[in-house]
Amino acid sequence: MLAVGIDIGGTSMKIGFVNEKGEILHRFRLGVNHEDGQVKMVKELGELVNQEIEEQGYKASDFVGIGVGCPGCINSETGRCDFSGNLNWHDLDVVGLLNSITGLDTRIANDASAAMLGEAMFGAGKEYKNLVLLTLGTGVGGGVYINGRLYEGNEGKGGELGHMIIRMHGRQCTCGSHGCFEAYASASALIADTKKAMKKHRDSKLWDYVHGNIDDVNGATAFEVAKLGDPVAEEVVKNYSYYLSIGVLNYCNIFRPDAVILGGGISGQREYLTRPIEERLAARHYGFPMSPKVRVFVSELGNDAGILGAASLAFEKVKK
Amino acid sequence: MLAVGIDIGGTSMKIGFVNEKGEILHRFRLGVNHEDGQVKMVKELGELVNQEIEEQGYKASDFVGIGVGCPGCINSETGRCDFSGNLNWHDLDVVGLLNSITGLDTRIANDASAAMLGEAMFGAGKEYKNLVLLTLGTGVGGGVYINGRLYEGNEGKGGELGHMIIRMHGRQCTCGSHGCFEAYASASALIADTKKAMKKHRDSKLWDYVHGNIDDVNGATAFEVAKLGDPVAEEVVKNYSYYLSIGVLNYCNIFRPDAVILGGGISGQREYLTRPIEERLAARHYGFPMSPKVRVFVSELGNDAGILGAASLAFEKVKK
Repeated sequence: MLAVGIDIGGTSMKIGFVNEKGEILHRFRLGVNHEDGQVKMVKELGELVNQEIEEQGYKASDFVGIGVGCPGCINSETGRCDFSGNLNWHDLDVVGLLNSITGLDTRIANDASAAMLGEAMFGAGKEYKNLVLLTLGTGVGGGVYINGRLYEGNEGKGGELGHMIIRMHGRQCTCGSHGCFEAYASASALIADTKKAMKKHRDSKLWDYVHGNIDDVNGATAFEVAKLGDPVAEEVVKNYSYYLSIGVLNYCNIFRPDAVILGGGISGQREYLTRPIEERLAARHYGFPMSPKVRVFVSELGNDAGILGAASLAFEKVKK
Repeated sequence: MLAVGIDIGGTSMKIGFVNEKGEILHRFRLGVNHEDGQVKMVKELGELVNQEIEEQGYKASDFVGIGVGCPGCINSETGRCDFSGNLNWHDLDVVGLLNSITGLDTRIANDASAAMLGEAMFGAGKEYKNLVLLTLGTGVGGGVYINGRLYEGNEGKGGELGHMIIRMHGRQCTCGSHGCFEAYASASALIADTKKAMKKHRDSKLWDYVHGNIDDVNGATAFEVAKLGDPVAEEVVKNYSYYLSIGVLNYCNIFRPDAVILGGGISGQREYLTRPIEERLAARHYGFPMSPKVRVFVSELGNDAGILGAASLAFEKVKK
């Protein structure tokens, strides 16, 4: 059987026909036209899915259903997107619309929850039953996998792992609160910290790396320049690793999962990202040394994490 | 069917024969004699259980099994107590010993996890399927109930909810880390904060309340004196409520449970404890106002929470 995985982003929707091994047999895209109304956007999406199923020689009955990973505030119980800032969606019945157009059973979840399930089903978490995923991007997204199933909390509104306060009275967060994990450990926070260090240290190699253009700083910049031995970049990376390890440590003590999986662009740093965290965990988690070690992995699904995560929602729904 | 619930404390073990309605039909105690070896202590316990079953006219087959709630570092998968400071137990096969003496199926868990399950089965959480319990005592114990089952994490070492860092570089915690929730929100922390405020304000009514004897301060003192309008006590309570609300808020964003239940002696303050937290939650949790409200309750089982929680472990095991 196949599933349709729909990864909704702010500029385009990526869609894949995925089999139970996690192979994407066919993929296509739909641009997000912000001038269309929200209902029209989803209808167009549903009609495109129908069309591609037919053009590729499949039948609806080849599919277990549709899974949708969507940014924003998703009610996975009602199937609605309550609010998505990037998409300008408000109280939109995504599941109802897609189901009525395609006839396929449809399930929606927050994009980080979808990515969590994708890693558990097809990626870095395949062998484990208790997992936590942190996606390090504009914010910090979170996914929780417990006893072999996705855990989403009441109305699917749990797993907001970026909004755990790790420093009371700390940095302002975009959510309105202060000291949230995401205000320290997101790619945005790392970029801001990198720029701040550059402004303070005009002689740092960070400037050479971006050819003097501070707007070119991204989530990899500090890591790459630290590898060249620049002390300013090393300090930025050291602080970032520390912040990240506080959050990972907290989730170890809370969930004691088999593993914590790190996703998002920064996860491309692989062992440069995971090693300092594992070292800190080994020395610091509660109950050490009698408690089991928690592994720290980076995401394995890369650019396909969104489509595969979305498809995994449809596969899990069938197993329920 | 009945269950034997064993609530192990630092000075005595409280045991009850509990029915499926959560009624304690018979109860007895065994003093903890720290001069006995650890194995002897557990053997004596098992033999006492056998003896009471017989004396009360029951048969072993009337019982689904034994549940044990134990302080310290418990491996609920192997049934061993890895370490318990108060009891001076090290790598003790509690489940194996009790099972071999009584012939009854036995399950052990951390005492806060047991209390969580007790509240879910018989107490304040009876109507819900996703719950978080925080016991405010010497430390902050934690229990997690997900999709209608106790969640304990790998080897039963999860749910260490008191050791979530809420203030990086913050107060020293007894666990060796800094800034843990328990260093701010435990009864011990409240008592220390009350004493600190008293030393700074010799004219506070807090002094009258304890008849000038600062050693008489307990977890209720600041609350009781705040009710009399003393500004120093009010400030202590206000800060404590704030610290507690940070942790509760974090657990709302992480789990989005149906309710958070507060246990331990301080929970006797009831709405004086819960109201300020609910007010803060209503204004601050992520996704507000679109995310579901999380209720905040105090424990309903009171002094019997330990025995009932332990017994619930045996009842849940049977349902598995």
